[in-house]
This record gives sequence, C-alpha cells and structure tokens, in this order.
Amino acid sequence: MSESQPNIESKPNPITSNSIGTSESTMNGKSGGTPLNHVYIGKKPVMSYAMSALIQLAQTGEIVIKARGLVISRAVDVAEVVVQRLGGGSYETKDIKIDTERLGEGSEARNVSTIEIVVGKKP
Amino acid sequence: MSESQPNIESKPNPITSNSIGTSESTMNGKSGGTPLNHVYIGKKPVMSYAMSALIQLAQTGEIVIKARGLVISRAVDVAEVVVQRLGGGSYETKDIKIDTERLGEGSEARNVSTIEIVVGKKP
Repeated sequence: MSESQPNIESKPNPITSNSIGTSESTMNGKSGGTPLNHVYIGKKPVMSYAMSALIQLAQTGEIVIKARGLVISRAVDVAEVVVQRLGGGSYETKDIKIDTERLGEGSEARNVSTIEIVVGKKP
Repeated sequence: MSESQPNIESKPNPITSNSIGTSESTMNGKSGGTPLNHVYIGKKPVMSYAMSALIQLAQTGEIVIKARGLVISRAVDVAEVVVQRLGGGSYETKDIKIDTERLGEGSEARNVSTIEIVVGKKP
C-alpha cells in the first residue's frame, strides 16, 4: 500500500500475518546475516535470483522468496521460473503470504505491501 | 516470466494450477462478460480497484483479484487495502495462487506471471 494507514497494527490478519519474520534487519536486501534459505528480490534480472534460489533449494530443500513494493511481480516471476522451468518438476509453490509493512517515521511514514513465496521439494 | 518457456504445459503444478479460470476472454481487462466477483487489475490507482472490490464483496461475499505482469504488485496492494484498512476487519485473504500464462503466438510468444488473490468474509 502506498497510502497512510495509521490503524493497521490494531487489525492483525491471521491469514496474512507473518510467521517467518520480516524485521527491518532482514528485509534490507543485504545478504549478510540473513537466513540461508531466504531470497530477497531487488532490481537485478529475474534469472539472477532464480539461479540463486535453485542453489539454495539444493542446499536446504526449501526457500522463501521475499519482496516488497513494485518488485513483488518479480518475486512471482522468480518462483514461476524455478518451479515451472528450471526445477525439472521437483519443486512446488507451498505457500504464499501477503502483508503490509510500515516504512519510515512521522510524516515520512508509508505502507508498503510485501509477499513471501515458499518454494520447496515436492513430497 | 518474461522468457521463452515451451514446456510449461507439460508440467502442471498442483499448487499453482488455476481452479478458477483465467481464459483469454476473461483476462483482457474488459468488464463486459466477466464474472461479477472478479476484479481485474490494470493501470488505474489502487483505490479505484479497492472501492470496486469492496462493492463486489458486499454483493457476493467473496472476490477474486486478478493481475498479470508488472501490475501484480498493485493486486497485492488492493488486497491489503481492502483487508487491512477499508474492510473494517470483516474480510480476510483466503487463498493466493500464482501461475504462468503464455501470450502471443510464434516468435511473439512470451510468458507472463499471473496472480489470483481470493478475499472473502471472515467465518
């Protein structure tokens, strides 16, 4: 969301609430200190993230593709490339969550939508 | 996805496969002939779709927010605005599906990611 939404925290949504953890420190797009199986989507080409996702999938068996704002569509692209094209039929989309995160403070504060796509080995 | 993917139809994904129906005729953004409870996201402002979604929710109790390509992030915005801000706590995100659709023919063919977000009344 791009507009002001002061009362969002008073209405938690049990479906979209985040069970994985998207604290500011792990959502800043840096790879240092982030969990091994999380792929944070930024401005790089889809294939760059897809290759990274495949490597992490091979190591851990399950990954979480995370994005916020305008690159949410790229996160969906990455998940679809991994599951339908590069994964050779071994992986599936296990869960998708959407949520809203509040960025900035005071008059600079704004809401931004987030997505988390869990991709893992087929049972 | 924006790249060629000739073998997508040979690998259907049980999680992301579409149980609601995204035929070309219903995904072209026109309102004529489309189901009452589907909201197709295009280039208009988020609030425009959010108001339309709320009206359809009041009439039918459940809506499907659909988008493809770069406006997928706007579909997430619409769902979050409806559920977390405008809905007054009455609605929740019930299901999210992603998929890939093939557009164009021959050398013009390309793949585009799609999303369907089902929002409905809380039980």
